[in-house]
Amino acid sequence: MVTKPAKAAPDTARRSERSRRAIYDAALALVGEVGYPRTTIEGIAARAGVGKQTIYRWWGSKADVLLEAFLDLAAAPAAEPYAIPDTGDLAADIKGVLRATVDQMTDPRFDAPARALAAEGVVDAEAGRRFTAALMEPNIQLYVDRLRAAQEAGQVRAGIDPRIALEFFISPLAQRWLQHTGPISYEYTDTLVDYALYGLAPR
Amino acid sequence: MVTKPAKAAPDTARRSERSRRAIYDAALALVGEVGYPRTTIEGIAARAGVGKQTIYRWWGSKADVLLEAFLDLAAAPAAEPYAIPDTGDLAADIKGVLRATVDQMTDPRFDAPARALAAEGVVDAEAGRRFTAALMEPNIQLYVDRLRAAQEAGQVRAGIDPRIALEFFISPLAQRWLQHTGPISYEYTDTLVDYALYGLAPR
Repeated sequence: MVTKPAKAAPDTARRSERSRRAIYDAALALVGEVGYPRTTIEGIAARAGVGKQTIYRWWGSKADVLLEAFLDLAAAPAAEPYAIPDTGDLAADIKGVLRATVDQMTDPRFDAPARALAAEGVVDAEAGRRFTAALMEPNIQLYVDRLRAAQEAGQVRAGIDPRIALEFFISPLAQRWLQHTGPISYEYTDTLVDYALYGLAPR
Repeated sequence: MVTKPAKAAPDTARRSERSRRAIYDAALALVGEVGYPRTTIEGIAARAGVGKQTIYRWWGSKADVLLEAFLDLAAAPAAEPYAIPDTGDLAADIKGVLRATVDQMTDPRFDAPARALAAEGVVDAEAGRRFTAALMEPNIQLYVDRLRAAQEAGQVRAGIDPRIALEFFISPLAQRWLQHTGPISYEYTDTLVDYALYGLAPR
C-alpha cells in the first residue's frame, strides 16, 4: 500500500509531462497554421489527444498555453546562445547573439507560431503588451545589462541610455522579419552592430 | 446636344469622386474595426452606400481598395512633411520627418487601419511584401536619397550603406508601434537620430 502511490507518482508525472509536451506542440502547430483568432482550447486538445479539461486544469486561457509553449521552445538547447556573453568585446558578443536570433527567425518551428502571436499583438494592444512582457522583455533586459557593463568598461558613452541603444541591434532585424522590408543574414546583423557602435557620421 | 454631355461629365466625375471617397473611408474604417480577414468588398460597399459592382469596376480586390485608400490618406495635407527636406542639417531634417511619423502613429484615423494591414502582412508574406512595396518603399527611398546627399556632403561616412543606415531611424519606432515595446514621443525619436549619427562607442 505504501509502494503503490510511490510507484504511481512517477508514472503520473511522466504521463503529465507527455501530455504537457503534446499540448505545447499542438498549440504551436495550430496557431502557426490557422492564426491566433481561430486557435481554440478545443482545437489544441483534439490535436494533442487530451481532454480539454486537462488543458483547463493547467492553464486559464489559450494565451497562457501559447506563452508557456513559446517559453518552452525558447528554453530548448538550440536557443541557449540567447544569453549574452561578456568576453570584453562588445561588438563580438552582440554579433553572436544576433546571429542566434537570425537562426531562430529562419527556423520554421519558430517562424509560423511567432508570426501568429506577433500579428495578434499588432491589433490587440493588451495581448501585445502581454506577449512582449513574457517573450521579449527578458531578452531586452539581457541587452540592457550587457550595454551597462560595456558602459562601466568605458566602451559605450556614459550619456547613452541602454534601453534605447539596444533597439539599434534588435529593431531593424525585427522590422525586416515582421514587415518583409529586407533580407535577413549574419552579414546584415554584423553590419548593424558596427554602424550602431561607431555611428553614421564621420569620426 | 453639345452642352448636355459637357454638363453631364463634371456631374459624373463629381459623383464618382464622392463614391470613391466614401469607399476609401468605409474601407479604412471597416478594416480598423473588424480586421483584414473579415473585411470584404460587400462590407465596404454596404458601408459606403454603393453597389459592390462599383467597387469591382475600379479595383480588383480588397487589398487594392485598401492600398489606394491608404495612399490617399498618406497624401492628405497633414502628411505632407513626409518629404524629407535637405537644409544641410541632416540631424534636424531627419528629426523633423520622424516627428511627423510620430504624429501619424498617434492619429487614430491612421492607427487602427494601419495595424490591421500590418498584422495581415506579418502572417501572409505575399500580402506583407505587397503592402511594404506600396506603402513603405516610397518613404524608404526618401531616406536613402537624403542619406546619399549627406554622404556626398561629407556628413555620413563614405562606407555606410544608406539602405541599412536608415533603419536606425525607422525600425526602432516601428517596433515600438508594432510590438508595444516602449512609448513613442518626439524626445525618443530625437534621441534615436543623435545616437545613430554619432554612435554608441566613445569618440
